Amino acid sequence: MPALSTDLYQLTMAAGYFESGMRQHATFELFVRSLPPWRSYLMAAGLEQALEYLTMLRFKRDEIEFLRAQPVFNHVSREFFDFLAELRFTGDVWAMPEGTVAFANEPLLRITAPIIEAQLVETFLLSTINFETLIATKASRVVSAAQGRSVIDFGTRRAHGSQAGMLAARAAYIGGCAGTSNVEAGHRFGVPIFGTLAHSFIMAFDAEEEAFRAFLKVYPDTATILVDTYDTIAAVKLLAQKFGAVVPAVRLDSGDVLHLSKQARKILDAAGMTKTRIFCSGDLDEHRIAKLVAGGAPIDSFGVGTQLATSYDAPALGGVYKLVSTTSGGRIKLSRAKATYPLPKQVWRHKGKDLICAADEARPGKDWQPLLRRVDLAAREPLSSMRDRAMAELKKLPPKLRALDSEPDYPVKFSKRLEHERRKLQERRARIG
Amino acid sequence: MPALSTDLYQLTMAAGYFESGMRQHATFELFVRSLPPWRSYLMAAGLEQALEYLTMLRFKRDEIEFLRAQPVFNHVSREFFDFLAELRFTGDVWAMPEGTVAFANEPLLRITAPIIEAQLVETFLLSTINFETLIATKASRVVSAAQGRSVIDFGTRRAHGSQAGMLAARAAYIGGCAGTSNVEAGHRFGVPIFGTLAHSFIMAFDAEEEAFRAFLKVYPDTATILVDTYDTIAAVKLLAQKFGAVVPAVRLDSGDVLHLSKQARKILDAAGMTKTRIFCSGDLDEHRIAKLVAGGAPIDSFGVGTQLATSYDAPALGGVYKLVSTTSGGRIKLSRAKATYPLPKQVWRHKGKDLICAADEARPGKDWQPLLRRVDLAAREPLSSMRDRAMAELKKLPPKLRALDSEPDYPVKFSKRLEHERRKLQERRARIG
Repeated sequence: MPALSTDLYQLTMAAGYFESGMRQHATFELFVRSLPPWRSYLMAAGLEQALEYLTMLRFKRDEIEFLRAQPVFNHVSREFFDFLAELRFTGDVWAMPEGTVAFANEPLLRITAPIIEAQLVETFLLSTINFETLIATKASRVVSAAQGRSVIDFGTRRAHGSQAGMLAARAAYIGGCAGTSNVEAGHRFGVPIFGTLAHSFIMAFDAEEEAFRAFLKVYPDTATILVDTYDTIAAVKLLAQKFGAVVPAVRLDSGDVLHLSKQARKILDAAGMTKTRIFCSGDLDEHRIAKLVAGGAPIDSFGVGTQLATSYDAPALGGVYKLVSTTSGGRIKLSRAKATYPLPKQVWRHKGKDLICAADEARPGKDWQPLLRRVDLAAREPLSSMRDRAMAELKKLPPKLRALDSEPDYPVKFSKRLEHERRKLQERRARIG
Repeated sequence: MPALSTDLYQLTMAAGYFESGMRQHATFELFVRSLPPWRSYLMAAGLEQALEYLTMLRFKRDEIEFLRAQPVFNHVSREFFDFLAELRFTGDVWAMPEGTVAFANEPLLRITAPIIEAQLVETFLLSTINFETLIATKASRVVSAAQGRSVIDFGTRRAHGSQAGMLAARAAYIGGCAGTSNVEAGHRFGVPIFGTLAHSFIMAFDAEEEAFRAFLKVYPDTATILVDTYDTIAAVKLLAQKFGAVVPAVRLDSGDVLHLSKQARKILDAAGMTKTRIFCSGDLDEHRIAKLVAGGAPIDSFGVGTQLATSYDAPALGGVYKLVSTTSGGRIKLSRAKATYPLPKQVWRHKGKDLICAADEARPGKDWQPLLRRVDLAAREPLSSMRDRAMAELKKLPPKLRALDSEPDYPVKFSKRLEHERRKLQERRARIG
């Protein structure tokens, strides 16, 4: 994660603050203005990568030299680049733990730091938290649709590059997937890894039976035999006749899988292969899975690729990172449809409703729970506890919000104090303007 | 790029080949079965990252130990892991150079190597080439819509993580963008970098005028002043009254930018600021840009974010990587709607039509040009020459194919020889089945 993984304007602004002698502390908040299409909640994710970035942030000598050589910095002093070389992130971070259910306008992350530090980190924080939250949210929809059948992330090959594949695997696990095919996500994060075999393995042998035998020999306990390379039902019959109950699982990857899974189940059961599981993949998403489940498809688990790893039907989360206060007080932006609320905030939740308050407001009532916690930059939470949180939070959601076609109507309000402070600033700005 | 950036099944298959004594050479081809929605051509990109991966591929000790500890490999021999530790990519690569216009079914990349090597690299090659080709293609649409006005990639914050932001910037440049806001893409690849300033900079000062003055002082030649933080037209008037012709550019980021750009141009011109340029950003895509251009918006350049860096309207490219031959001859897959053609291929182009032939077929005619070239794994092409190729290739396309709403109807045929070989294999397979 190089320090240059940022937008140039963060650096031009940093130099602008520096040359203007602006060193004050500022608070920025990361939030989503409106939920993506067809989403009625968000599942927060990506905090661990954000914290890793903040703790490791430093500009190397060659990065500084690259910047100094850019014509845009012609009028910037040597002192600014010396300052950059020494820069470390020294700020405070408050955040919703990963796996927290969140809604529009709720800060997922709040940073208070000297303004240059707080500004510089915007781009990386947005790209990481936007993406992982997007995928955890999508995963939780897909997992809901599978109603208890396990879902495996198979999306790396269609993800937006190798890092996106790995982070999608991590986020999908937080969102409720049972695991991933991405080995690096297993190695780096401990996500359970799963794999079957590809058509090329079958095709590399002269006969399908040879390929099946070779694979079953090496993976007697786990082999999931791909049966659609030439003719799905013929391959299932071949397995039943030649191999029988030792086959752990078969995989359907094309065709009318509702029909094929029922046929395959009958053939397997008739051959006494009642413990041979049926795994299904191939252009699946939450809607196709819901339809297969509703149709009674005897499928034990699903592999979901492109749709999951790119959140295909809503492939970006519009998270923003906005200045809410400086040492001189609350700050707002008035741009039409993009106006913001001032002051550092806390989000409180109680019995199916949320209240966004100023961070220094008292707890709104005895049983209200705060969602943002102060983060220890050195501590890390186990992935499994994020996933457990996500499961628990989802269960607490009003059931209609978990429906695939739910409208985003969870009640989120701003406190009177925030509404008042915002009005005050709007009026002051109107007078200045 | 760790060696574990792959799907587990590549490794289970590798062990399967190894334990079955399969060491033969195999050829795989990477191609797209059908163009993504609303696309009538592809712009190939991502080869450089693919080659970097192939030349650097090696399994480290801790990666090997991680794999050995996975229960799935319980029945795999120690020899396989020793083999993995020594594995290097030794194969041949043929590819379309980056910036080549390509169509469905045309191999973008062809790998011939010992089957284990060729198999293992599938996932990384797909994730990189799928993604960069997707973005270069999207960029070329956006750039076409801008009709000569420059387009800058602003998408990192909504890209699928920091690496995706950087690779999107690279691919967007190949596809015709003038540059990017992503500093690392400038540092690593030499993509021209651009930056303006954010609302937070304006908001950090008590008055807009103060912020404008501070920024213009540090960036007298390049400052692009953001004018929509509070009231766009009021801010443009303020610039005209207090600063005048020294302002290099203004940036509109919200509201009805067609109308606002015309108003802003009038105010600027009336103040003698005829050289002050107008830059526009804010939820732009190729369709909105086309509409602004058609409406006569006096906008000099565009910043495009989310839509570009995620290819929002078609956020995945369905590239596949298929075995086409082994030492024993051509290979095909028969799965419905996913059937493939056997044998290593070459793509020939002549006067607006393409012919896909077996690699060992003669040139179809005197002026036909081959699109796949043998790659020198150690050589790298300058990014600018990929971009020049893309521009030149686009110009040669039939004009109707460059329209935003074009249908994918470029003529691509398979040679008689390939049709014949495929039929032969289908018949043989039918006899075996």
